[in-house]
Amino acid sequence: MIGRLNHVAIAVRDLEKASALYRDTLGAKVTAPVAQPAHGVTVVFVELPNTKIEFLQPLGADSPIAKFLDKNPDGGIHHVCYEVDDIIAARDHLKAQGARILGDGEPKIGAHDKPVLFLHPKDFNGTLVELEQA
Amino acid sequence: MIGRLNHVAIAVRDLEKASALYRDTLGAKVTAPVAQPAHGVTVVFVELPNTKIEFLQPLGADSPIAKFLDKNPDGGIHHVCYEVDDIIAARDHLKAQGARILGDGEPKIGAHDKPVLFLHPKDFNGTLVELEQA
Repeated sequence: MIGRLNHVAIAVRDLEKASALYRDTLGAKVTAPVAQPAHGVTVVFVELPNTKIEFLQPLGADSPIAKFLDKNPDGGIHHVCYEVDDIIAARDHLKAQGARILGDGEPKIGAHDKPVLFLHPKDFNGTLVELEQA
Repeated sequence: MIGRLNHVAIAVRDLEKASALYRDTLGAKVTAPVAQPAHGVTVVFVELPNTKIEFLQPLGADSPIAKFLDKNPDGGIHHVCYEVDDIIAARDHLKAQGARILGDGEPKIGAHDKPVLFLHPKDFNGTLVELEQA
């Protein structure tokens, strides 16, 4: 069911610093920051040959990553995102297997303008898993 | 400098359970477990189309992931591994930029029989980064 690893998301306090680190120290291709107020984050992508690293910096008072950064003051890996062909079929299969979907269980339009779901970390090795319809 | 994301490593308590979850619930291709006593882990790979997820289960009394699992009882993402062409050149560049290499700073032969280094999480957004000579 799952296909490509779409991205690994890393929560950071300082997007400029994280971008400079990956661009100058690790020599990777880094995109310009894009504010996504609807998602409470500002985003930068590190474009690797086979996948992306997504830096997330909190934006606004209710950022979904604020608590994560309280617990992980240096930042840290926040989630992994796997692609699926059909997010409704994936959701129904997962629910039938007993996996918990976060929120109301309905796909939302994610930061890449595609339908996404998040799976409960307790059901997935302590790892927050995003599924994105490719 | 960095190339492909070679793998994302997830520390797990129960390799059988994690393998069944990715194979049966997420429908991914999962390899058989391989014990690596020299590295203190038993390893399973989830083979995605563009990269791998590596499950690590502690093996023996001095496993390098035992403490991580004490802190993260459900498991969790342990590190990301980026490929480099020349690990000595990468190491020297990183040191010149002020990044800290873990251990004695010399590459070791990693779990994939290739030279690897680990970078200090405090210098990389709270993320443990492995570099592997591809």
